[in-house]
Amino acid sequence: MDVLRTGFSAIGAVTPESTTHTEAEARDIADSMLAKTGSLLGYWHHFANSGKRIEVETDDDSIGAHFLHLLHGEKPSALWEKAMHASLVLYAEHEFNASTFTGRVIAGTGADIYSCVTGSIGALSGPKHGGANEVALEIQLRYATADQAEADIRKRVENKEVVIGFGHPVYTVSDPRNEIVKVLTKELATAAGKDNLYDVAERIESVMWEVKKMFPNVDWFSAVAYDAMKIPVNYFTPLFVMARISGWTAHVIEQRNDGKIIRPTATYVGPEDRPYLPIEKR
Amino acid sequence: MDVLRTGFSAIGAVTPESTTHTEAEARDIADSMLAKTGSLLGYWHHFANSGKRIEVETDDDSIGAHFLHLLHGEKPSALWEKAMHASLVLYAEHEFNASTFTGRVIAGTGADIYSCVTGSIGALSGPKHGGANEVALEIQLRYATADQAEADIRKRVENKEVVIGFGHPVYTVSDPRNEIVKVLTKELATAAGKDNLYDVAERIESVMWEVKKMFPNVDWFSAVAYDAMKIPVNYFTPLFVMARISGWTAHVIEQRNDGKIIRPTATYVGPEDRPYLPIEKR
Repeated sequence: MDVLRTGFSAIGAVTPESTTHTEAEARDIADSMLAKTGSLLGYWHHFANSGKRIEVETDDDSIGAHFLHLLHGEKPSALWEKAMHASLVLYAEHEFNASTFTGRVIAGTGADIYSCVTGSIGALSGPKHGGANEVALEIQLRYATADQAEADIRKRVENKEVVIGFGHPVYTVSDPRNEIVKVLTKELATAAGKDNLYDVAERIESVMWEVKKMFPNVDWFSAVAYDAMKIPVNYFTPLFVMARISGWTAHVIEQRNDGKIIRPTATYVGPEDRPYLPIEKR
Repeated sequence: MDVLRTGFSAIGAVTPESTTHTEAEARDIADSMLAKTGSLLGYWHHFANSGKRIEVETDDDSIGAHFLHLLHGEKPSALWEKAMHASLVLYAEHEFNASTFTGRVIAGTGADIYSCVTGSIGALSGPKHGGANEVALEIQLRYATADQAEADIRKRVENKEVVIGFGHPVYTVSDPRNEIVKVLTKELATAAGKDNLYDVAERIESVMWEVKKMFPNVDWFSAVAYDAMKIPVNYFTPLFVMARISGWTAHVIEQRNDGKIIRPTATYVGPEDRPYLPIEKR
């Protein structure tokens, strides 16, 4: 996430948006950021892990395939490409979440689109926002079998532990994105010989519904899907960036059209009228 | 602004904050960011303008003096140092303005302090937020004399033009910071042989009060002060960053102590229930 935040900030410094802020240019920059995310991640992955400076051009015609190609050094299968597309579309936009709202607050000041996206990436990097799919996999990997998972989760729920990846601030009965992700994940897991991980994830889903009436959010099965495509866990949230840039930048354009600055007022609730003490006497 | 945004983002990537997010570490990082801002700006200034890579260590014991020293290549006068201190203190914190609010939204997700400050810098870069002191100087430099300024401003007000630098979303009768800035600015302008620019600024202030009952915000005389200290206009907003990092980071710490995510909900007001059209038919 630090690499994407810094990378897009640097791109914005070197090739800044015009101060006219036309919608056409903003859309072009948004497209180019979507295209560049996979290259930034793929380049960083190889350079950071083995010092190798890869070429970032491929002949793939989608950003999902391009990313997988750079990551693994070979064209992804049709199934993987399809799964990436579905995942990117499902993560693309989601109303006034914290990173989108960050982008809108920045856009409200008249700042450039790179400042907005840089801020949004920072917000998404927080564990209360974008980090959930990484933690989902950690939980799932704790268990060798679905039965083991069921026994342990029941015990944790009894002990009033929070199981991360369940519940959502907006949805109340289910995350509608989950239905689509689940079908694709099953297919991916079977193809990768990882049915077991899928079974663990599915069993925890049933148990959580049975005992807590809680449903997994979109990150829960996405984690299994990404793992089946051999995507390292620290790229889960950056992939979320790759998808969400479309939503963020659409909101930036909308906020610009609205033309308002977002600037709440605060109510001061601290002590009043304290005597002034010169600094050398403090 | 792009350089500061990218610089702090990169520093956060190379020397990240611990995930424990203790207040003590956050305060240390805040101090170090305050100290580094002048070095980032000074280094960039010389490198961008003449390709010279300067040393960024000085023996100054304040961030204001350090910045002026790097910018001009010599220790600032006692008067300049005092003026910088006053200016930095006055700009340090200002409630829930858009950049501070941006930092709080990012902090609310549990993100690191560099993500928060990077986002705040982006917000401050917007012309509706941090850019006012740059524009103030532009307006003031239009006039050779105070009389010329008065005549033109009266005409513009009659034509219902907006004079930037006047009025404030929070203050209603005056900007209390202005009183302090004005006295120091007079002293700086006289020492620099720039009484004329001060007189122009002061005359516009009187005219705006007389005809519109509007008062200048803190940026109005700050612009004259910075100009007297030979600070190029494109560093006015970056200096604002140098000051405001203290306020931003204090808010980040407060938001973390509060522990809440900031995530408004939106009311959808667009069209409902449109028929689905496959993409190839659109």
